[in-house]
Amino acid sequence: MAKVLTSRSENYSQWYQDLVIKADLAENSAVRGSMVIKPYGYAIWEKMQAELDRMFKETGHENAYFPLFIPKSFFSKEASHVEGFAKECAVVTHYRLKTDEVNGGVMVDPDAKLEEELIVRPTSETIIWSTYKNWIQSYRDLPILINQWANVVRWEMRTRLFLRTAEFLWQEGHTAHATKQEAIEETEKIINIYADFAENFMAMPVIKGLKSESERFAGALETYSIEALMQDGKALQSGTSHFLGQNFAKAFDVKFASKEGKEEYVWATSWGVSTRLMGALIMAHSDDNGLVLPPKLAPFQVVIVPIYRNEEQLDAISEKVNEIISKLKARGISVKYDSSDNRKPGWKFAQYELKGVPVRLAIGPRDLENGTVEVARRDTLEKSVKEIDGIDEYIETLLDKIQSNIYTKAFNFRKENTSKVETYDAFKIAVKKGGFVLAHWDGTAETEERIKSDTKATIRCLPLEYEEEEGVCIYSGKPSKRRVLFALAY
Amino acid sequence: MAKVLTSRSENYSQWYQDLVIKADLAENSAVRGSMVIKPYGYAIWEKMQAELDRMFKETGHENAYFPLFIPKSFFSKEASHVEGFAKECAVVTHYRLKTDEVNGGVMVDPDAKLEEELIVRPTSETIIWSTYKNWIQSYRDLPILINQWANVVRWEMRTRLFLRTAEFLWQEGHTAHATKQEAIEETEKIINIYADFAENFMAMPVIKGLKSESERFAGALETYSIEALMQDGKALQSGTSHFLGQNFAKAFDVKFASKEGKEEYVWATSWGVSTRLMGALIMAHSDDNGLVLPPKLAPFQVVIVPIYRNEEQLDAISEKVNEIISKLKARGISVKYDSSDNRKPGWKFAQYELKGVPVRLAIGPRDLENGTVEVARRDTLEKSVKEIDGIDEYIETLLDKIQSNIYTKAFNFRKENTSKVETYDAFKIAVKKGGFVLAHWDGTAETEERIKSDTKATIRCLPLEYEEEEGVCIYSGKPSKRRVLFALAY
Repeated sequence: MAKVLTSRSENYSQWYQDLVIKADLAENSAVRGSMVIKPYGYAIWEKMQAELDRMFKETGHENAYFPLFIPKSFFSKEASHVEGFAKECAVVTHYRLKTDEVNGGVMVDPDAKLEEELIVRPTSETIIWSTYKNWIQSYRDLPILINQWANVVRWEMRTRLFLRTAEFLWQEGHTAHATKQEAIEETEKIINIYADFAENFMAMPVIKGLKSESERFAGALETYSIEALMQDGKALQSGTSHFLGQNFAKAFDVKFASKEGKEEYVWATSWGVSTRLMGALIMAHSDDNGLVLPPKLAPFQVVIVPIYRNEEQLDAISEKVNEIISKLKARGISVKYDSSDNRKPGWKFAQYELKGVPVRLAIGPRDLENGTVEVARRDTLEKSVKEIDGIDEYIETLLDKIQSNIYTKAFNFRKENTSKVETYDAFKIAVKKGGFVLAHWDGTAETEERIKSDTKATIRCLPLEYEEEEGVCIYSGKPSKRRVLFALAY
Repeated sequence: MAKVLTSRSENYSQWYQDLVIKADLAENSAVRGSMVIKPYGYAIWEKMQAELDRMFKETGHENAYFPLFIPKSFFSKEASHVEGFAKECAVVTHYRLKTDEVNGGVMVDPDAKLEEELIVRPTSETIIWSTYKNWIQSYRDLPILINQWANVVRWEMRTRLFLRTAEFLWQEGHTAHATKQEAIEETEKIINIYADFAENFMAMPVIKGLKSESERFAGALETYSIEALMQDGKALQSGTSHFLGQNFAKAFDVKFASKEGKEEYVWATSWGVSTRLMGALIMAHSDDNGLVLPPKLAPFQVVIVPIYRNEEQLDAISEKVNEIISKLKARGISVKYDSSDNRKPGWKFAQYELKGVPVRLAIGPRDLENGTVEVARRDTLEKSVKEIDGIDEYIETLLDKIQSNIYTKAFNFRKENTSKVETYDAFKIAVKKGGFVLAHWDGTAETEERIKSDTKATIRCLPLEYEEEEGVCIYSGKPSKRRVLFALAY
C-alpha cells in the first residue's frame, strides 16, 4: 500500500494535517476557520465528554445552558477581560435577510439593524455573572457549581484543525463561592480533574502549574494549567482553571449576605477544556502509520477482519467471530466486525492502523481449523497468534497493557526531552532542540518578554511540584528560588 | 404554604410561565428571546438527549459537528428553502471590536467587515449538503446517516420559554441515500422513533401524520410530524422528519455513481426535535401544584425527606435512609436525600411537588420504631404508609405504575378532547372548545388557508392511521375520502 501520510521527520505539521484528514477526524469547512468534525473524530470527542462529564458530576457540578449571544456592553464591564477577550469576535449586527431584488439571492435587510450589537460568545463569564446576580442573595445560595457544554467563537487569523479554529467545542465551568479559600480549592480541584483525565484516559502525562502573570486568563487572579509535550518538542496547553477573585462579582455587582449578615462580593472560578484536546491526543501518541488511540477513548477498541475466499468460508468465520464478539461485549469491550466485501484484508489492515484501533484480530480458514486468531497491537505493531479459547480475557488484559504502554512511552519521551539549564546560551540551545526546559527566572514580566522575543519560548507554567533551589535567572542573573517551565508552544 | 402558581383555569399561559420559572427549569436572559436553561431543566433535557441518542445509534446513526456559521450565498441555492428560512436570522457582519476612544467601552471595528456575511444556522441543510458533496462519489459512500446535537437561532419576535425562543437546542439528522425508497424509509423510521420516544419516555401520546403542502418544511417533498395535545386543548408539533427528495443534492450538485455506473443525484432526509419538547413535557402532564414528571425522564425519581427534632433523631433516620438508598440505587433508581436543616419538611414537600419528583418518602422517629415510611405519589398526590422492608421493590413497581398512569391520563384526555365533525358550524364550535378535530377537507391549499384565517385552526397532519371514508369537505362541500386532523396550535 502507498504511504498515506507525510512522515513526522519530514514535515511534522504536514503529518498532523494529513493524519487528521486521512483518519477521518475533521476537515476544513466552507466557512473560513471553522471545521467539520467527522463521525470518527466526534466519537472520540464524545468519549472524552462522557468521562469529563462523569468526573464533574461526581464532584457536585451540574450542567446548564446560557445564551450564545452576549450584548456588546457586557464586555466593557470587567476592565482586564475586555482587553484580553472582546477584540477578535464574531459580531451580529442584523436580524433579518431579504430578497435581493437587484442581484437575486438574499441580502441583509438594512431595516433590521440591532440597537446593540451581539457578540457570539468567545467565553461566557460576562453573560453568566449577569445571570448569577439574580440567583445569589444569601450564603444559602452558594456555592453554585455549574458547567456548560457549548460552542464558542474566537476569530483566529491562522487556524489549524482542532488546535486553533474560529469555532470550537468546549466545556466551561463557572462557579460562585462564599469564600476566597473555597474558590481557590475549587480551582485546584478542577486542575486535578483535568490532569487525572489527561493521564488516565488520554494516556498523556501533564505538568500542573500556575501561569505567569502575563499568560493569565483576562480577568483572573491566578490561572492553573496542564501542559503536555508533543512529539515535535512543543508544549500544548491542554486545560486551564482560573481563580477569578471577586472581579466578575464586582463588575456585575453580585453580592451575598454572609452567615454573619454582612454583605460581601462573591468569589468566582472558571475552567475549561476544548476540542483542542483532540489535537493533543493525536500529537502525543500517533506515528507515521496513523493514529494511536488509548483504548479508553477509542470509538471501538477491537476490529475483526475475516480472511476468506468464498461465501462458505466467510459464513464459517462469521459464526466463530460472533461468538468472540459476544464474549468481548460481555466484558464491556467495543468491537467492530468488518466483513465488507468491497475491500481486501490488506487495505482494511492499513485503514484500521490509520484510524488507531488498539487491537486488530484477523481470522481465516486455517485459524478456524487450528482454533487460533492473529492478534495485532496498534501501539507496538506486534503480531502474534493466540488461541480463540480465552481470547476475551487475553484482550481485556491486553487493552490495559496498551493503555499503560502508551502512557509510559509518552512519559519516557517527556523525560528524555526535559532538560535543566543554567545559562542563557544553554537555554537557547535547549529551546532550539525542543522539549521542556527547566530554568531559573527572576519573576519579572520584562525578562519573560525578552526571552520570548529572543527565542519564542514562553513560560508554560510555574509547576506546582518543584524543589526550592537557590539559583540565578538565566537572563538577568538576578537571584531566583525555583525553576519554571519553558518551551516553545502551540 | 402560599399558592405558588397561577392555576391553569385562571390563566393557562401564566400558569406555564410561572411553572417554568418556579420549578427552576429556565428563565429569560439579558439577550432578547434567548433563555437560560437552569440545571434542573437541563437535567431533564440531558435525559431526553441520552435516550434519543441511544435510539439513533441503535439504528445506525453517528454524530458529527458542522459549523455554526453559514455563508449567506448558501441560502439562495435551494429556492424554496430560502423562501421559508433565510429571513429571520442572526447575521454576522464583522469579526472584530475595538476600544471606543470617544465613548469608552468597545465598538465594532469598521475595518473588520466580512466580505460575505455569515448567517448563524437556523438549520443546517445547506452547510451539510455543501460538505456531503465532497464525501459522496459512489454508491459505496452511501448511505450517510449523521446526526448533530447543536444550537440554532431563528429570530422570533414573540418568544416563550422552551416553546419559541430565538436560540434553542436541538438535534438535526441529515441523511443521504442512493434511492428514493430508502430515503422515504429513513424518514418513516425516524418519525417512528420520535413517536416511540414521546409515548414511552415522555408518556405523551402522539399522532403521526403527514403535513399538508403548505405546512411542509421549506425544501421538503414530504414532512412527517408527531402532534401532541396539550391540556389547554392546543396541539403542539413535537418532532418532524422530512423527505427532501433530490432538492438539496441538486442545489449543491451532489451526485453519485450508481452500481450500474450511472450518475445520479443523491436522495436526502432531515429530521429534528428540540428543547421545545421540554415545553410539551411540561404542558402535557403538570398540574396546579407544579410539574409532573414521568419517572423515565425525572432528574431524580425519589426524594427522601427526614422528619426530626434533633441531631440524634436525624442520625438514626439517616442510618436507615442510607440503607434504603443503597437498595434503590442497586435497582437503578435515582434518589435524592434532602436532610438540609435550613428548611422545614412542609416547605420541602411543596418544593419537590413543584419540581415533579415522582415519589417522595418521608420518614420520622415514629416510622423508625414501626419500620415504616410514608410514600407520596406525585401523579395522584396519594399518600400511604409502607413497610421499609421491601420498599425498594415496591418503589420499582410504583415507578412503572406512575409512568403508565401519566401516559393513560394524557391518552384519556386526548380521547375526550378529540371530536369528529361534519359541518363547518360544528367545526367552529369544536375548535373554540379546544382539542383535536377530525374533519373532511377537499385537499386544497385555498380551503386550508380560509379555514385558518376564519378560525385560526390549522391542519396538524394527515394521520398515518386513518379509515377511508366517503365524505364532503366541511368548508367547500367537495368530496373527500378521509378525515384530517385540525386544531389550534402552538
